[in-house]
Amino acid sequence: MPSAVITLLTDFGLQDEYVGVMKGVIMTIAGPGISIVDLNHGIAAQDVRQAAFLLDASYRYFPPGSIHLVVVDPGVGTQRRLIGLKLDRHYFIGPDNGLFSCVMKGASAAVAVELNNQQCWLKTTSDTFHGRDILAPVAAHLAAGMSLDALGTALDPSSICLPADWQPRLLEPHHLQGTIIAVDRFGNLITNVHSSLLPTGGVDELPPAVRIDLANGFDLNLQRQYAGVERGEPLALINSRGFLEIAVNQGDARRFFDAAKGDTVEIYW
Amino acid sequence: MPSAVITLLTDFGLQDEYVGVMKGVIMTIAGPGISIVDLNHGIAAQDVRQAAFLLDASYRYFPPGSIHLVVVDPGVGTQRRLIGLKLDRHYFIGPDNGLFSCVMKGASAAVAVELNNQQCWLKTTSDTFHGRDILAPVAAHLAAGMSLDALGTALDPSSICLPADWQPRLLEPHHLQGTIIAVDRFGNLITNVHSSLLPTGGVDELPPAVRIDLANGFDLNLQRQYAGVERGEPLALINSRGFLEIAVNQGDARRFFDAAKGDTVEIYW
Amino acid sequence: MPSAVITLLTDFGLQDEYVGVMKGVIMTIAGPGISIVDLNHGIAAQDVRQAAFLLDASYRYFPPGSIHLVVVDPGVGTQRRLIGLKLDRHYFIGPDNGLFSCVMKGASAAVAVELNNQQCWLKTTSDTFHGRDILAPVAAHLAAGMSLDALGTALDPSSICLPADWQPRLLEPHHLQGTIIAVDRFGNLITNVHSSLLPTGGVDELPPAVRIDLANGFDLNLQRQYAGVERGEPLALINSRGFLEIAVNQGDARRFFDAAKGDTVEIYW
Repeated sequence: MPSAVITLLTDFGLQDEYVGVMKGVIMTIAGPGISIVDLNHGIAAQDVRQAAFLLDASYRYFPPGSIHLVVVDPGVGTQRRLIGLKLDRHYFIGPDNGLFSCVMKGASAAVAVELNNQQCWLKTTSDTFHGRDILAPVAAHLAAGMSLDALGTALDPSSICLPADWQPRLLEPHHLQGTIIAVDRFGNLITNVHSSLLPTGGVDELPPAVRIDLANGFDLNLQRQYAGVERGEPLALINSRGFLEIAVNQGDARRFFDAAKGDTVEIYW
Repeated sequence: MPSAVITLLTDFGLQDEYVGVMKGVIMTIAGPGISIVDLNHGIAAQDVRQAAFLLDASYRYFPPGSIHLVVVDPGVGTQRRLIGLKLDRHYFIGPDNGLFSCVMKGASAAVAVELNNQQCWLKTTSDTFHGRDILAPVAAHLAAGMSLDALGTALDPSSICLPADWQPRLLEPHHLQGTIIAVDRFGNLITNVHSSLLPTGGVDELPPAVRIDLANGFDLNLQRQYAGVERGEPLALINSRGFLEIAVNQGDARRFFDAAKGDTVEIYW
Repeated sequence: MPSAVITLLTDFGLQDEYVGVMKGVIMTIAGPGISIVDLNHGIAAQDVRQAAFLLDASYRYFPPGSIHLVVVDPGVGTQRRLIGLKLDRHYFIGPDNGLFSCVMKGASAAVAVELNNQQCWLKTTSDTFHGRDILAPVAAHLAAGMSLDALGTALDPSSICLPADWQPRLLEPHHLQGTIIAVDRFGNLITNVHSSLLPTGGVDELPPAVRIDLANGFDLNLQRQYAGVERGEPLALINSRGFLEIAVNQGDARRFFDAAKGDTVEIYW
């Protein structure tokens, strides 16, 4: 029985059967005992950037050898490549559209292949659901013991799509411009600003004197936890993913600030 | 340890604990190692037809021997039968209200039983949650090795509920009237018109010259993939389930057409 | 391979990756073969009472020895205790904020510990996600064979938080005042009034002559099942959890009564 874990990260949501059917395909190939974990299916439709950040913030929590299957694929049916990577003892499978740009930042894939060995796909493939017909079967074969090399042709890791403009911009020496890339269930505003870009070294140190400015002119200082301010009051903190987050203690920052995914955040120190 | 897969298809959604509790019941009987897959819980409340189509489009992607537990049950607590079927090397468990009419189309159940062996139920059964008290235990016993025959009394497959009016209607030799039976997360409009009813033979052939007319008079031709038209433009295609679907490339067809589940679609060729 | 089941009950929803990451942490410690079941993630944000009732109504459906990990934690990052209990052959892990008050009603924990053995936590812990950094690792170690005692310091079960005002109030000898503590997917209104508080002994007996009065003056008698009234008509019944529920046969009681979580229900007999 395979001992690997396959995680699924998609923009499919759970209201339809797309995710369930992919699991059926995986179990048909790798056996019913395979461990499949829903990493997340709530990525905004076709929001490749959001998936790329979330994957990077999450994959290290899974056992080494895990296979991370990512299906956010606005170009399904077109000529975009499907790729497989081995990186930091984890495997990644998905379309080459930027999804892996955050996990590859600062690291080079030990193995990278274009997933063009059709022996590993379903016998008939649709033009609209490569997650089911190509990517799920490929991940299942990998979990069942096939090597990454056998899934397709080696490719040059430097040719993998790495969109440059997803990172925050340093406008002045002490002025950074970031973006809200997700709003979570609680209404917390998640930015693309990693703690390593801020003057202190990370989540374990004391909060720096940083001023955070939302589009509507609100100023916030960094707290260590939600309860650092009174209930109903806004705050900023480095969240559990290591990114700057704007929140309201026991409240909803999206409503408080009338903010949305894509809004700009200015940081001064 | 059982090697079968139990899939769950319900209209319970995931906001409540109904699905989780059914899994607890299954594991108590079949052991914690049993593989349980959420096929889908987003069926519209009590929409038996939607579940019947989705089940038929999905079950073949699971391993032979899989047990498909379907709970969409507007008549819970009344005298409607609960049944079990073996068909095409798969098992199906659920109320006899039309849920299995699409999987039975063109095939006869090898074994069909009324699930009336109360030894296989929970000791106390409620009047409102037979999914937990009867159907989940029955599926678990089947997964743990009990034969379908042992779950109840044999019944005549021809007595199973097969609603006739769920299929598209051929109004004239080249004029078909279908229905939107689901709207997926992306706003794609899924119809009940299978590709086999259209002039070409299926998804692998070139798209036919078919005109699709929504209630509001929009005309569309068939494409092979979403990217067959410009971003934001509407299209029709045979989707990955084999059914006619109306979509907008990287957009939301529900909003574009102001369409809803139940709307009529006219197809001319 | 561990034979236990870990259930997850949170207010995280499924739109974010919080639940998926907790599963990764569990599998890293207990191995990919561990059985993890989503009991429910749809608890209203920070609604400890709703989680406490739902846990009590659900845990008995899981195999003895199951580990129920509950993360509804408005005080994350403050000094509230994290605790582990063994009770009725089940394990419970979570913050000591009232979450276990319903399962402890009428029973005493055989073992209760404060989860302060940091050897069982992740090496670095955030101030905002103890579910991932402390509670998931602790549950995984328990599933992998560690004893509850080893997870921390024994504590006096009588010191566990048991909010008194969550139960219905008996205003007069035959007049009870309850609260709607949840609205399910179907729009059914779930109250905190257990059948044992009503004149009959439970779900298996005939419905008593009970009058139920919503805030807006509607009167209802108890039925045995949804189909006890005509389609579209309102009713009350003892639901499959054993609690009084107000529903509309094949309809939506939330809309019918314009009711919401927190509304008061008066019961007379």
